[in-house]
Amino acid sequence: MQEEKKVINELVTTLKDRDTERFLSLAEGLHYADLAEVFEGLSEDERNFFTETMGAEKFAEVITDLPDTLVEGALGQFSSDDQREILDQVSDDDRVDLLQDVSEESRDRLLELVEPDDIEVTKSLLRYGEDTAGGRMTTSFGKVRLGLTVKEALDELREAHADSETLARVYVTDEKDRLIGRLRIRDLAFNKWDSPVSEIYRPCKHTILASADQEDAAQMFSKYDLIVLPVIDEQDRLLGIITYDDALEIIEEESTEDIERMAGMAGEVSEDSYLNTTLSTHFKRRFPWLLGLAFLAIASGYVMLKFEHVLDELFILALFLPMVVAAGGNTGGQASTMVIRAMALGELDSGETSRVAWKELRLGLILGSLLGVCIALTTIFVLPLFYSEMPVEIGFVRFGIAVAIAITAQITTSTLVGSLLPIGARRVNIDPAVVAAPAITTIVDVSGMVIYFLVAKLVLL
Amino acid sequence: MQEEKKVINELVTTLKDRDTERFLSLAEGLHYADLAEVFEGLSEDERNFFTETMGAEKFAEVITDLPDTLVEGALGQFSSDDQREILDQVSDDDRVDLLQDVSEESRDRLLELVEPDDIEVTKSLLRYGEDTAGGRMTTSFGKVRLGLTVKEALDELREAHADSETLARVYVTDEKDRLIGRLRIRDLAFNKWDSPVSEIYRPCKHTILASADQEDAAQMFSKYDLIVLPVIDEQDRLLGIITYDDALEIIEEESTEDIERMAGMAGEVSEDSYLNTTLSTHFKRRFPWLLGLAFLAIASGYVMLKFEHVLDELFILALFLPMVVAAGGNTGGQASTMVIRAMALGELDSGETSRVAWKELRLGLILGSLLGVCIALTTIFVLPLFYSEMPVEIGFVRFGIAVAIAITAQITTSTLVGSLLPIGARRVNIDPAVVAAPAITTIVDVSGMVIYFLVAKLVLL
Repeated sequence: MQEEKKVINELVTTLKDRDTERFLSLAEGLHYADLAEVFEGLSEDERNFFTETMGAEKFAEVITDLPDTLVEGALGQFSSDDQREILDQVSDDDRVDLLQDVSEESRDRLLELVEPDDIEVTKSLLRYGEDTAGGRMTTSFGKVRLGLTVKEALDELREAHADSETLARVYVTDEKDRLIGRLRIRDLAFNKWDSPVSEIYRPCKHTILASADQEDAAQMFSKYDLIVLPVIDEQDRLLGIITYDDALEIIEEESTEDIERMAGMAGEVSEDSYLNTTLSTHFKRRFPWLLGLAFLAIASGYVMLKFEHVLDELFILALFLPMVVAAGGNTGGQASTMVIRAMALGELDSGETSRVAWKELRLGLILGSLLGVCIALTTIFVLPLFYSEMPVEIGFVRFGIAVAIAITAQITTSTLVGSLLPIGARRVNIDPAVVAAPAITTIVDVSGMVIYFLVAKLVLL
Repeated sequence: MQEEKKVINELVTTLKDRDTERFLSLAEGLHYADLAEVFEGLSEDERNFFTETMGAEKFAEVITDLPDTLVEGALGQFSSDDQREILDQVSDDDRVDLLQDVSEESRDRLLELVEPDDIEVTKSLLRYGEDTAGGRMTTSFGKVRLGLTVKEALDELREAHADSETLARVYVTDEKDRLIGRLRIRDLAFNKWDSPVSEIYRPCKHTILASADQEDAAQMFSKYDLIVLPVIDEQDRLLGIITYDDALEIIEEESTEDIERMAGMAGEVSEDSYLNTTLSTHFKRRFPWLLGLAFLAIASGYVMLKFEHVLDELFILALFLPMVVAAGGNTGGQASTMVIRAMALGELDSGETSRVAWKELRLGLILGSLLGVCIALTTIFVLPLFYSEMPVEIGFVRFGIAVAIAITAQITTSTLVGSLLPIGARRVNIDPAVVAAPAITTIVDVSGMVIYFLVAKLVLL
């Protein structure tokens, strides 16, 4: 890895010096993922030099690894002939990804550049949504008919699939193109050449519908340690395959999406790295939530105004007010995170709401009462050392008990809200991660204020 | 998938009915990952029936997929002979995982049951930490010497590696066991049988040291679309391989860990599913942070006490107090999330702190001033409709401006704190995710109180 870092740094220098020859020889030794990373960090001028010097054929590999937002610009640096070359070089799923990354106009224009051989499959793949199994699959894979012998199958594969993305699995289909089973190259290589394929194939246990969510596909990979997952249509016809590297990508994307949504970030996850994401993209993703939550938070202020008389009478209540409110936010955030992650990992079925509620109710009571006891003890034994104005008719003990009750009530409410809101969101088809921490914190802030003042009023005044 | 769900449900019924025969025939058709999931959800009694009926040989597959915490109990249900059978059946990396999941006493006892053939490799694998590349690797893979021909290589592989975890890659080593290159089975299968291996192997571009972090290994898989990654020692000797399914697992584990830490959950990520995690584990992971943050939050209350005179003089300030404080928490949480995720994806080098600070400083100023303007406008045009006690010498305009200034200052401070604290944490080798949202929220709550009251005092009173 150190070696690579050095080559990458040198490559960046050659870009600044416009040293064509050295650039090409260095680029030759690098993986296209590294080249894409370098390209992302370049200025406009350097990118022009990069694409011009590298040429369409080699750049075709790099462009498939660029963040979505850079694809249109990168393609635009090439002539139509070069664009045709790029679209020809890439695999069919990458071609579709590229076409999905550009504006609609560009897509129509680029589609005309696609080779006649590829146009049909490209158009049919474009029909699937980007986030479905069909949108992720490739149509280049090894396929043999049920009727062949091992020798015939090997010959056919060698000819037809020299450029297949993977031959780790070969699929067996019947005359209607329905998926019958699978083979490994070694099943063919280590078998007698006149054995019929029909005798050596294994059944395919795991398949996925083209219309299914890509997350379901990724979960099947991780659960069953798959390397390839065949994608079929409603008639069991084999349409394509998804490979393990797609699954890795899906899992990383979905985790990032969840993490960002949970922190109150709006919109699509940026494919650019943090530092390369523009200020305006950052702004657009953060501001809507900030604004919405700010207005929601005014409700807390309104509650405070309404209970002015309570604070007036016993201002020492202010000492624990932010704590009670914040404890609800923290515990609600914990509960929602656990539940959202459990749903993302496919652990929670929709029928289990009451089990979740029961678990969090007990947990909230335990967490709340224990924290309450800790704070009450502090109030009774430590606070008197610093504070001498506690009214005699109230006293530190009663004050501590009131705070403890408020904490218990607030934490119990908050764990329930935190765990049930994401489940409710899923019921009405909202991404659970969207209602996570920030939204929940703001909501339980309001309830915390009300609980705290009500308890104080009832117990103390 | 529907089909499987049905079989699983039926299996659970046979468990309740203690229907041995039907249980075995249903279990036969299920993947061990499904069986492990069923086992996890069972009562003690049902688990006993499950292990007894299934027997050691078949259960050996299931136990490798169980959460860590269930391994010791499951092993304990078997006799020593059965335990020996299980340890013999599993692959060497799975055996080491099992041994790492049990108590030290059990480990020593179980080690004595390991077959003499396997004991050396087992002990050597146990030396690597669970979270290192060495701790993840398996030592069963295809390996051929440089001097062989294709035919000799194929014969050798067929004999020696019938039970290898993967033959997708075969590695070529020299006489000192140093890694020279790699082959694919198809390179062998599609080549003349008398060609020397030395002429057809390809170089290995990507390798990892056994002592490296497992996260580095996973990042290499996702970046370079690897299917297998060879693990070497300092002398370039080939020790083992990590496969794509390990990478999937690592990425899921690390994402879950980050997500949970960011929500203020202490301790190790539970391998049990959310509903199967015990109440006491949930409690232990949530309470420490709740308690710590609660005491930290008292600082906010203390600030409020100190500024009692400001609230006394102008209680309408309370209306926007929770909002200014919360806006800081929200924006700080967003900033920290972006930075922590960027670090987890390997996007941020340690030299880039100043670029992050510069980005977040500008972003904070823009977000803060815009939100400030929105709130000021609300204060000037909407508040007068509901509130009639604003002192004339202050007026709604001046009040609105003061709130806007406070918001801008608070949000700018918070984005800086939120983005720089995780970077600082990494510098001193604390997991950045630990100082995320809840900790940052609590810290900026205090700063928000101070900023709000100071601005109010300076501008209004």
